[in-house]
Amino acid sequence: MALNTKIDADHNAPPVTRILAEYIVNHPSRGWDDAVEHEAHRTFMNWLGCAVGAAGHEAGEAALRAVQVLQPSAQASILGRSEQVDIASAALINGITSHTFDFDDTHLKTIIHPAGPVCSAVLALAELTGASGRQIIDAIVIGIDVSCRIGNMVYPHHYDRGWHITGSTGGFGAAAACARLLGLDADKTQMALGIAASQPVGLREQFGTMTKPFHPGGAASAGLMSALLAREGFTASKRAIEAPRGFAQVLSTKFDWNEITDELGKRFEISFNTYKPFACGIVIHPSIDACVQLRAQGVTAENLERIDLRVHSLVLELTGKKEPADGLQGKFSVYHGCAAGLIFGRASESEYADDIVTREDVVGVRRKVVATIDDNIDEASVDAVATLKDGRKVHVFVEHAIGSLQRPMSDQDLEAKFSSQADPVLGAGQVRKLMDACWKLGQAPDARGLVALARKGGQ
Amino acid sequence: MALNTKIDADHNAPPVTRILAEYIVNHPSRGWDDAVEHEAHRTFMNWLGCAVGAAGHEAGEAALRAVQVLQPSAQASILGRSEQVDIASAALINGITSHTFDFDDTHLKTIIHPAGPVCSAVLALAELTGASGRQIIDAIVIGIDVSCRIGNMVYPHHYDRGWHITGSTGGFGAAAACARLLGLDADKTQMALGIAASQPVGLREQFGTMTKPFHPGGAASAGLMSALLAREGFTASKRAIEAPRGFAQVLSTKFDWNEITDELGKRFEISFNTYKPFACGIVIHPSIDACVQLRAQGVTAENLERIDLRVHSLVLELTGKKEPADGLQGKFSVYHGCAAGLIFGRASESEYADDIVTREDVVGVRRKVVATIDDNIDEASVDAVATLKDGRKVHVFVEHAIGSLQRPMSDQDLEAKFSSQADPVLGAGQVRKLMDACWKLGQAPDARGLVALARKGGQ
Repeated sequence: MALNTKIDADHNAPPVTRILAEYIVNHPSRGWDDAVEHEAHRTFMNWLGCAVGAAGHEAGEAALRAVQVLQPSAQASILGRSEQVDIASAALINGITSHTFDFDDTHLKTIIHPAGPVCSAVLALAELTGASGRQIIDAIVIGIDVSCRIGNMVYPHHYDRGWHITGSTGGFGAAAACARLLGLDADKTQMALGIAASQPVGLREQFGTMTKPFHPGGAASAGLMSALLAREGFTASKRAIEAPRGFAQVLSTKFDWNEITDELGKRFEISFNTYKPFACGIVIHPSIDACVQLRAQGVTAENLERIDLRVHSLVLELTGKKEPADGLQGKFSVYHGCAAGLIFGRASESEYADDIVTREDVVGVRRKVVATIDDNIDEASVDAVATLKDGRKVHVFVEHAIGSLQRPMSDQDLEAKFSSQADPVLGAGQVRKLMDACWKLGQAPDARGLVALARKGGQ
Repeated sequence: MALNTKIDADHNAPPVTRILAEYIVNHPSRGWDDAVEHEAHRTFMNWLGCAVGAAGHEAGEAALRAVQVLQPSAQASILGRSEQVDIASAALINGITSHTFDFDDTHLKTIIHPAGPVCSAVLALAELTGASGRQIIDAIVIGIDVSCRIGNMVYPHHYDRGWHITGSTGGFGAAAACARLLGLDADKTQMALGIAASQPVGLREQFGTMTKPFHPGGAASAGLMSALLAREGFTASKRAIEAPRGFAQVLSTKFDWNEITDELGKRFEISFNTYKPFACGIVIHPSIDACVQLRAQGVTAENLERIDLRVHSLVLELTGKKEPADGLQGKFSVYHGCAAGLIFGRASESEYADDIVTREDVVGVRRKVVATIDDNIDEASVDAVATLKDGRKVHVFVEHAIGSLQRPMSDQDLEAKFSSQADPVLGAGQVRKLMDACWKLGQAPDARGLVALARKGGQ
């Protein structure tokens, strides 16, 4: 039984698990500027709208039926529905639904969708404990900071290896946020991070199946339970992140410890969070945006001969499906995204319905899209040239798509997106009250009023 | 945002996820010889004794308190206790307790402890559904076959990288066993394996903390939920194990697909399961065995000058703690193991009590142990020379320790081990009935009678 392969390990890593634990515990409440505080509310609202919008999707329904086998107690609400389940199951299901339509937030440096794991765990726990809105916002800012900093530490190698980084780092964010919400001390918070380190959830191979949105849900549930276990004295390695056989070195070949410590408590990763105008993976957004712009310049399904896209290699690697057979596969097709942009001028969830993805005119346009990898094109950009049947060419270059940090969605854009998702589930009147409650969450005595508005038939 | 590192992926892997799913579903009930059938009962009984024996340990207590926050329904029993919790939580806690004392079974080819994830999930589910003893034994044989074959596929590279292979492959075993127990078809079983693939639990960095036994518990719970999700139509990749970004290629640099397919349904990995006579990691067993033999040849704490061990490198890598401060650390100290063997002639759980590990005479002996890595010594062996104060030398060479495949524990040995663990918890009379029920499990109408005997105050 020979054991030959060895890890070329960094044995001198700084104690980042401890450093993060002390930050989680000691950073002052609302210890950031107004822009960060506002971004936290935007992040929360965008996440909530996504979860409500997908409440009736089969992924959430199937997960709920599985959870109901456990006969869970009614501790926390499933957003956009009337059922209540235990807090770990609520974290799981709300995490699943919030990512089901691939319409949630994106931390662009890492392609992490940070709200799913963190907000799903925090809101479920807060509904049970009655934590204040202030505590909730604090937990969200700090939890997202922790998962995104861990993501920065290992990206891109960790992602390239095949980990769905949202789920593999999300458990840390959820554990951090719940530890903060529970008021754990630094020793127990360090244990919570350690327990979470052993539970990375997510392989990129699952893209295009329900297990992709399972990843943030599983991370939310695992992180929440890690904090509860730590509170009860459960132990883990004190160096679970940085040790030679800890999370970073086992799951990545890059581990830049400075990404944890640089400007910790001064720069907050939630500042770099973005929200999607299109209901699909972020790498397709420049292409869809380009096609929306081509449409505005008079290009139509009827006069189009072909569209030539020059794209970053990741676009085809992640979303190269040429002939998607249904809506879920359509999410992984830059071709379908372009067809939606050109025909409808948008790519919201309704443009990913099964019968749209297979509709004759949509299929016709997507087959006219030719995407070529160009090493000079940034991941955030696309170069698109439409050739019309009369020989004319229309050229669009998108440097940064709508929804990027450089061209962020406005608060009004976010409200419009929220309404488009939540109105069909909860009704416009209730949704208006719910959005107001979201903007005021930081001042609310607790989250229960907001949660009641997020439930079907609530008020 | 450059993404340079690429996986050197095997794109032509055979469809092992599908192959395993069809095996799980289609292999006939009791489709093996009497030796395999008997080994399944030995595996189950050994696991049960370990779980009962550790029922009062702080790791299980802390996990139970955390789970009770969820106000779980009383669906399944915690072994060796009176509480009942939901089936996922029971799988978690029984998985934790069964591995808490590092006294459970070992599949030597992979150092997997296979019963923890599989039996913990199966028994909890069977208690709820009323599955027959026959179905339970079938599920255990097949579940253990699946996790150990996946282990064989990636061992040792996966383990060397830092994964605690018991937890990282255990979810597959639990999912396979529960899928079989639930009667899922091949398509849904394939999905159950796929969902489990995204939830590997376990870093070796956690050794020496409660999160080590958490790994089989977490795997049991994750595998059980994967089967329940799949039954409800939840989807995953059909190639979650073998795809370029699937489990094997993301979590290992070795992936020998033949380990899945060779003699599938003819050779059963449970045949190669072993049971520990000593309550610690298997790599120390030859050393402890050697010291027990030195003791039998008259070596004592009083007449000993020093013991020179020549060991495989893994012994010091895994269990090189020179000055363990408590019982849990003692498990990772070949020095303490040797002291226990020499002074007490055994290393059961009581020799890992905190006050034994720090007792003056025990510390004195362990400091006389000098362990040297010798590349000519197999992992299964040890060469020990005791030098006495009068200058005499006593030499023992252990080729295979007691409890190995070559020198297996007898059924009577297993009963004695079971009693030593369970009698203090349940009382000798109840334990005698419980052992009888274990030997007859394959013929029982269901597991409920057995489970009642495994509960504190049961009968």
